[in-house]
Amino acid sequence: MDLIARLAEIVGPTHVLTGAEAAGFGREWTCHYTWTPMAVVRPGTTAEVSALLQLAHETGTKVVPVGGNTGLNGGTFAEGALMISLSRLNRVREINPAARVVVAEAGVVLETLHDLAAQHDLAFPLTFGAKGSAMVGGFLSTNAGGSNVVRYGSARALCLGLEVVLADGRIWNGLTGLHKDNTGYDLRDLMIGAEGTLGIITAAVLKLTPAPTAYATALIGLPSLDDALTILNAVQKGSGGAVEAFEYMPDTYMERLAKAKPALACPFPPQPVNVLIETATTVPGADPVAQLEATLFEAMEQGRVTEAVVAHSTAQRRKLWEMRETAAEITFTTPDIVDCDIALPLDLLQSFLDRMTPRLMALDPQAGELVIGHLGDGNLHYTAYPSRSDAALGKAIRAAVNEEAMALNGSFSAEHGVGISKRATMAAHKDPVAVQMMAAIKAALDPKGILNPGKVLP
Amino acid sequence: MDLIARLAEIVGPTHVLTGAEAAGFGREWTCHYTWTPMAVVRPGTTAEVSALLQLAHETGTKVVPVGGNTGLNGGTFAEGALMISLSRLNRVREINPAARVVVAEAGVVLETLHDLAAQHDLAFPLTFGAKGSAMVGGFLSTNAGGSNVVRYGSARALCLGLEVVLADGRIWNGLTGLHKDNTGYDLRDLMIGAEGTLGIITAAVLKLTPAPTAYATALIGLPSLDDALTILNAVQKGSGGAVEAFEYMPDTYMERLAKAKPALACPFPPQPVNVLIETATTVPGADPVAQLEATLFEAMEQGRVTEAVVAHSTAQRRKLWEMRETAAEITFTTPDIVDCDIALPLDLLQSFLDRMTPRLMALDPQAGELVIGHLGDGNLHYTAYPSRSDAALGKAIRAAVNEEAMALNGSFSAEHGVGISKRATMAAHKDPVAVQMMAAIKAALDPKGILNPGKVLP
Repeated sequence: MDLIARLAEIVGPTHVLTGAEAAGFGREWTCHYTWTPMAVVRPGTTAEVSALLQLAHETGTKVVPVGGNTGLNGGTFAEGALMISLSRLNRVREINPAARVVVAEAGVVLETLHDLAAQHDLAFPLTFGAKGSAMVGGFLSTNAGGSNVVRYGSARALCLGLEVVLADGRIWNGLTGLHKDNTGYDLRDLMIGAEGTLGIITAAVLKLTPAPTAYATALIGLPSLDDALTILNAVQKGSGGAVEAFEYMPDTYMERLAKAKPALACPFPPQPVNVLIETATTVPGADPVAQLEATLFEAMEQGRVTEAVVAHSTAQRRKLWEMRETAAEITFTTPDIVDCDIALPLDLLQSFLDRMTPRLMALDPQAGELVIGHLGDGNLHYTAYPSRSDAALGKAIRAAVNEEAMALNGSFSAEHGVGISKRATMAAHKDPVAVQMMAAIKAALDPKGILNPGKVLP
Repeated sequence: MDLIARLAEIVGPTHVLTGAEAAGFGREWTCHYTWTPMAVVRPGTTAEVSALLQLAHETGTKVVPVGGNTGLNGGTFAEGALMISLSRLNRVREINPAARVVVAEAGVVLETLHDLAAQHDLAFPLTFGAKGSAMVGGFLSTNAGGSNVVRYGSARALCLGLEVVLADGRIWNGLTGLHKDNTGYDLRDLMIGAEGTLGIITAAVLKLTPAPTAYATALIGLPSLDDALTILNAVQKGSGGAVEAFEYMPDTYMERLAKAKPALACPFPPQPVNVLIETATTVPGADPVAQLEATLFEAMEQGRVTEAVVAHSTAQRRKLWEMRETAAEITFTTPDIVDCDIALPLDLLQSFLDRMTPRLMALDPQAGELVIGHLGDGNLHYTAYPSRSDAALGKAIRAAVNEEAMALNGSFSAEHGVGISKRATMAAHKDPVAVQMMAAIKAALDPKGILNPGKVLP
């Protein structure tokens, strides 16, 4: 019996897609990567995923898991491989508002979790642009971030337990909702962020948090990123650690924004550094706006904040957020951009820009530069606009960004992961002993190398 | 040249201890475990640790790292092995108050970090009884918990980066202070909690938090543990997530306490469940006491809280904490106790006790039972007092506790780790696929099995 027939025996013939039916799975949503999968299967249960991997292991079939297909680094590139779509594993197995956990399968969409939590006056605080498509398995496998990481952490910090199918079909049941469990190695966090190269996540226990009942949202202008760190610390202190977002938009971004969307123009003369701050509270009767204003007033008196606008209505809050959320549209204006996702120690963001801008100018004096980011996490989305379409120039700029980030003990991939697009950078910049450890772990858990081959490891 | 001479070449002869000099290292502080090490070496630098492990790897010498020797599970048992004491690696390499990180070597004592952070109006929030002796390398290797986990997480959640010497002497430099870094597998969290079986932690980047400026501390009495979870959630909401401790003391504990320490007797008639709650804030002008009182008042009106005493002075706060901190003294009264450290899903604590008490009575109708715990984390320290000294009975009781915890999807080791004392329990209760994964990772990273042999893995 051929492989396709055996796959059909496991998941049923309607859930094995080939040829034209499978073609829709043959690209990343950005279309930066396209491929032709051998077939796409859509298992409906963990047992089916297990049977599929047993078969793949036995036959040496390369397997690529896919969730909502919202990645950016070619993490689901699957030329000639068997794609396993987790979209039918979309049950919420349990929600327990008292214990504040939800048990969700890999194919549950992030926004579904948001809606479900809200029904219980709770929140699942992970959020980012692709929330309407991204799925549990994907956001865990990539340890996704987004704009609330400063308060709630990345996906890893929001997961208590996992169910994972290993390369040979064995099922690891680590689906506990425990807040403390010191019984051996931290396999959960090893699987999270492994981009499907060590196992396929089929379900997870996720933490829920009380839903904020009041927000304070402000846009402030400051002279420098060093001042921004001082303000972040002051607002953390002044709000009792309630900073939900601390988003960076420099003057260059504000200028592009005003041109592209006049209605979203900065409400004050753009300063070198502009930051969208949001705090939130669950405390009955609390006034987070007054609290934030008090901190900002003090900072203005000290000259650390030069401009500030505080939202006094939901519409004003929405508008401030739109200024930030238009970033993708503002950034991806030409195909030749060099877009980087770096992280830095919180106190070295300004140092990075001080080093990087001259390097960019040296490489291409007419190049443009645009930076936005999640400042509270030290995460900058740095984008360069070369003056000409020149692959070698783009590559040189990207190398310079990575070099400067690494020179400051930073990271060349803060939240987007490695996939295939950053494998060369892994080889160039990741600590070589770390790479050796990763390779040893990969070989131990997937000795035939069938799981998402060609990803993450350099 | 013999091994001792080669060790002396690496660390200097005064830092190689043998015979009587090494004897002090031959026991756990509880004296539950004693052993005779082959030798004890005290390296002063990471390079020396690396050279020691190269030598150990070459010669197949078994190696056991030791920090402050405050463990409870025989994790540093080292019969015939080379002990590597990290106490001389005690430098704070850097403290950066703006970025809120400290880089500390493995031998820095926890209390030293507390004091250092306090000098900058910051806190390193991990704390537990052994803080005056426990060291960075040890509290990370065991993923230590304590009484502030409900707010700040265990040791793992407070660590951003690590420097680790691997089994063959290679040095992994993962010493970054980044809040986001998605460049490959989470090696940091794999090393944390591995109890020295995968590598020797030599330094870490640790997170600091703003030091609270005001506390609210209360002792409350409630009818049941289910009510306690409702109150935990209510206080979390009412304080904006500021619950620092939520510590359980049942009536049986209060009775023992009143007998042993009349000055610490419960200020109200002990209820079935009594909880020490503490919230803390950094917000200028905030009144956490009034906030906590408002939440408790509402809960009392609903009949969920039946008694409450709120501390209105530092002395009153101190006294409430002493009631909790006397636990070890109250608990360890006879040598035959069966002391367990279990974790449960937050909503199943009462279910556990409802199942466990009859099982204990069936095994030994005259047995006593005492439970305290970190309720906010679902962590119970369950202690049984058998009516007679009988090893088989003790073993049967321990097995029953573990079985009942596991039947509720709990853990048989919440915060104390595995060491050698819980290896049999690992074999009996840990998910077998998880054990296989652990063994594969151990073999991949320590192929000769020289690192802390006989620990963690069943």
